[in-house]
Amino acid sequence: TQNYRITLLPGDGIGPEIMAVAVDVLKVVGKQFDIQFEFQEALIGGAAIDATGEPLPSATLDTCRNSDAVLLAAIGGYKWDSLPSNLRPEAGLLGLRAGLELFANLRPAQILPQLIDASTLKREVVEGVDIMVVRELTGGIYFGKPKGIFATDTGEKRGVNTMVYTESEIERIGRVAFEAARKRHGKLCSVDKANVLEVSQLWRDRITKLSQEYPDVELSHLYVDNAAMQLVRAPKQFDTIVTGNLFGDILSDAAAMLTGSIGMLPSASLGASGPGVFEPVHGSAPDIAGLDKANPLAQVLSAAMMLRYGLDQPKAADRIEQAVLQVLEQGDRTGDIMSEGKNLLGCRAMGNALIQAL
Amino acid sequence: TQNYRITLLPGDGIGPEIMAVAVDVLKVVGKQFDIQFEFQEALIGGAAIDATGEPLPSATLDTCRNSDAVLLAAIGGYKWDSLPSNLRPEAGLLGLRAGLELFANLRPAQILPQLIDASTLKREVVEGVDIMVVRELTGGIYFGKPKGIFATDTGEKRGVNTMVYTESEIERIGRVAFEAARKRHGKLCSVDKANVLEVSQLWRDRITKLSQEYPDVELSHLYVDNAAMQLVRAPKQFDTIVTGNLFGDILSDAAAMLTGSIGMLPSASLGASGPGVFEPVHGSAPDIAGLDKANPLAQVLSAAMMLRYGLDQPKAADRIEQAVLQVLEQGDRTGDIMSEGKNLLGCRAMGNALIQAL
Ligand SMILES: CC(C)[C@H](C(=O)O)[C@@H](O)C(=O)O
Ligand SMILES: CC(C)[C@H](C(=O)O)[C@@H](O)C(=O)O
Repeated sequence: TQNYRITLLPGDGIGPEIMAVAVDVLKVVGKQFDIQFEFQEALIGGAAIDATGEPLPSATLDTCRNSDAVLLAAIGGYKWDSLPSNLRPEAGLLGLRAGLELFANLRPAQILPQLIDASTLKREVVEGVDIMVVRELTGGIYFGKPKGIFATDTGEKRGVNTMVYTESEIERIGRVAFEAARKRHGKLCSVDKANVLEVSQLWRDRITKLSQEYPDVELSHLYVDNAAMQLVRAPKQFDTIVTGNLFGDILSDAAAMLTGSIGMLPSASLGASGPGVFEPVHGSAPDIAGLDKANPLAQVLSAAMMLRYGLDQPKAADRIEQAVLQVLEQGDRTGDIMSEGKNLLGCRAMGNALIQAL
Repeated sequence: TQNYRITLLPGDGIGPEIMAVAVDVLKVVGKQFDIQFEFQEALIGGAAIDATGEPLPSATLDTCRNSDAVLLAAIGGYKWDSLPSNLRPEAGLLGLRAGLELFANLRPAQILPQLIDASTLKREVVEGVDIMVVRELTGGIYFGKPKGIFATDTGEKRGVNTMVYTESEIERIGRVAFEAARKRHGKLCSVDKANVLEVSQLWRDRITKLSQEYPDVELSHLYVDNAAMQLVRAPKQFDTIVTGNLFGDILSDAAAMLTGSIGMLPSASLGASGPGVFEPVHGSAPDIAGLDKANPLAQVLSAAMMLRYGLDQPKAADRIEQAVLQVLEQGDRTGDIMSEGKNLLGCRAMGNALIQAL
């Protein structure tokens, strides 16, 4: 029997509901694959603010560090929006990424044939789209200094943030991306703004040099504005995309929305060593929290990514992904992905359907 | 008779061809509205590099300053891509924006009923889309300092750019945007990344304060990642968008691509005083340069924007825009917007069709 310690961070809004489904699914799959999970729950985001005054209590970070992987649901909500930014739920997420040195964020955006009609794009444009965005997650303008709001000589305020990358930061995310592209369809598109930004010129140089070590991967470069256009114009041209923290934030969300159903999309955040964090792309949806209406599938697929990328249990991951496809195939839908003639299920009922399918 | 001095910057690639059409159109409309144009041509971009070694010769900037408006076509091409960045065609464009203090970039993205099928999005999603992106153009990370590639203590390189906005910079672009929204449908969406960036927090505060002076405009805020999603998910929700230089670069291109035909989209760049610059959103398309295949309509619509926003001649602008709609209505198409059953025209023939329509 393989034993893993998993930290659960249910967070806010629909977080606890969808987490409960993912945990049930993991338990069943654990039995099937002789994997024993030891779950420990900890506070983050608004829930942590309410309980302790901080979005990421140090106890939570310690618990995460002492585990093999972290499964996160969603954080944030209107309730905490007017707090100063360093005390907001988002600060907990950024603190977790920094604290665990999760420099590589993997964000798949895949069109599932069962849900293709949910896309706002024409069927022929999105059919078969399968993109992996590899986003740098602990550098760039998210963390660069100086940052802050300063007074100027003339008495007015000046807001400042700094986009910074060192060669080694670029190289380590580049390696993750080339490796990912190699396991996928062998194409990597690096996105930057090298026609304007020096930090992007260094990015492009370093990625280009690195490509010599990956002769089997076909490297291309796009400016970020053009990449945003190309995602809308012809998304099938992309296989793997690598980019910095800010551009990755924007482009991974745009790519996600091509599918029309972000209630379906998981993500993985990985460090050099130590536990990874696995979480859905969608938010905490406070408006439907507690109503048993949430779609738990992105959370369940995040658990699958945890098995694949965090615990090296690809077969158990495959099993979960197959179960998700099967419930979709048999017509089960939560409200966000509902369409005519399908079976509308609540969050818990969808969980039960998954357990059946397993 | 009203007299205007217009600087023409044909630039590179298809620039000269599409500029020639726009000039012909302006001459005809000038006669109809008793407007006399004095055209003076100057060098920019690759053409300027080849002739003088610099992408923006000081003579060009002087000529522009001594004119009532500047009509620019397109710059850049593979040929100059390997030059150091301060000598590349793009540097000429950035220099022109800085030199003329063109802080406000207006980028309409409108779905024309005649071309709705060119969109990769479903008809019902894009029908009626009419977005104006107001992008700050002389500040933010494009110009902020420090910037450059520096050596670190450990011997590796570090790329740095700085995103900076002062309150007065935010206020002046905000005013342009609120005024634009007021003349449109009264809705303004400000886009930032205030959950992470301090410069965005200042942006959001200042825009929110400013909104008190525009009680008739409905202000909302979106994070840039969410804005990129919403443009794909439900673009009709947007009327006017205001954002910084980098976010505006990305979002205006994404918005433009919703139309499926960026060969149709003009833009205006305006300063506090002095001439504005009017140019198509598309690039120089070096692959079809000189082949009489280019679509001149974005250039012609840029001339209309020049009449409207630069010379205060809205009636002449209306006339040009009507002529463009008319040729589309009668089925005339260049290759980029061609579809079955329409008349395929070259660049010059499209120009002639416009003259007929006028
Ligand atoms: C909540 C926010 C801080 C976060 C980010 O910008 O990284 C989110 O948008 C994401 O992409 O995970
Ligand atoms: C060519 C480039 C410097 C420019 C920009 O980034 O502003 C272009 O993308 C644009 O949007 O006009």
